[in-house]
Amino acid sequence: MYYQAIAQCTQALRNLETWLDKAEQHAAAKKFDVAVLMSGRLAPDMKPFIYQVQSACDYVKAAAAWLSGQTPPRHEDNEQTIDEIRARIRKTVAFAESVKAAQYAGARERRVSLSWAPGKVLAGPDYLLQMTIPNTYFHVAMAYAILRHSGVDIGKMDFLGPINWIDA
Amino acid sequence: MYYQAIAQCTQALRNLETWLDKAEQHAAAKKFDVAVLMSGRLAPDMKPFIYQVQSACDYVKAAAAWLSGQTPPRHEDNEQTIDEIRARIRKTVAFAESVKAAQYAGARERRVSLSWAPGKVLAGPDYLLQMTIPNTYFHVAMAYAILRHSGVDIGKMDFLGPINWIDA
Repeated sequence: MYYQAIAQCTQALRNLETWLDKAEQHAAAKKFDVAVLMSGRLAPDMKPFIYQVQSACDYVKAAAAWLSGQTPPRHEDNEQTIDEIRARIRKTVAFAESVKAAQYAGARERRVSLSWAPGKVLAGPDYLLQMTIPNTYFHVAMAYAILRHSGVDIGKMDFLGPINWIDA
Repeated sequence: MYYQAIAQCTQALRNLETWLDKAEQHAAAKKFDVAVLMSGRLAPDMKPFIYQVQSACDYVKAAAAWLSGQTPPRHEDNEQTIDEIRARIRKTVAFAESVKAAQYAGARERRVSLSWAPGKVLAGPDYLLQMTIPNTYFHVAMAYAILRHSGVDIGKMDFLGPINWIDA
């Protein structure tokens, strides 16, 4: 389940990447610089779009690494343009997809620490369910909300992405 | 894992309930009717706050029911006030928590249909990971975004709620 859950969080990043194309189309149609959307915020004391994407990427990268017994690769938070943030998503997805199902075999027994919670650790299941999944979806949803609030033509199905329907 | 994952989605609803208190405090401090927040939207063609809460509740209720072999209780979408939406959350949480871990034993093999996807079903793992979790967090995050955008004093830790930290 660890492998499948992280694959689904990775898919959320892939979905997010498709919204960047919609953001570019919206900016072109309305004749404004797409950089405006990249620095867009939902509230003055919330982080901008690019940060939301970086943060979503980091939660996925960290989970794929720590839960498979690896140290996460370091990705600097230096993206400023839409192309740079696209590249950040792609390198995160590439790393997450480099981890095979078998590498998560010991995930349940691992303990994971977070830089912002010194002296504390989380058990594998709690790290997945209370940290990785909520934070990934939080930041992906905030990125969605910023674009949607700014008029970009995205909808719920863009948020969900591909679904493994079976004919009944 | 089904039990734990749905318990965490249920916790997201509990977290949301605490934001209602903050919404009331904000409305009182700024001297406006909290009903304004209940009908708040992020975009004119997005659903309002109350709908976001109803929808989050329904995904949790449906998952707890179908994955444990039950038919979900029917909850009418007739809430209009903050107290009514609080009651909706509470009855959803009560139902979800009435389902015990052992009742999810066959979840992996179940197939679940959705009213808006006629002729299709999802396998248990896909229903959990591609439908229940993303939709629950989507609607909870949109509810968060509406309040946060409107100045309610909530932050990321209110979104995450209680975390099972272990002393390192």
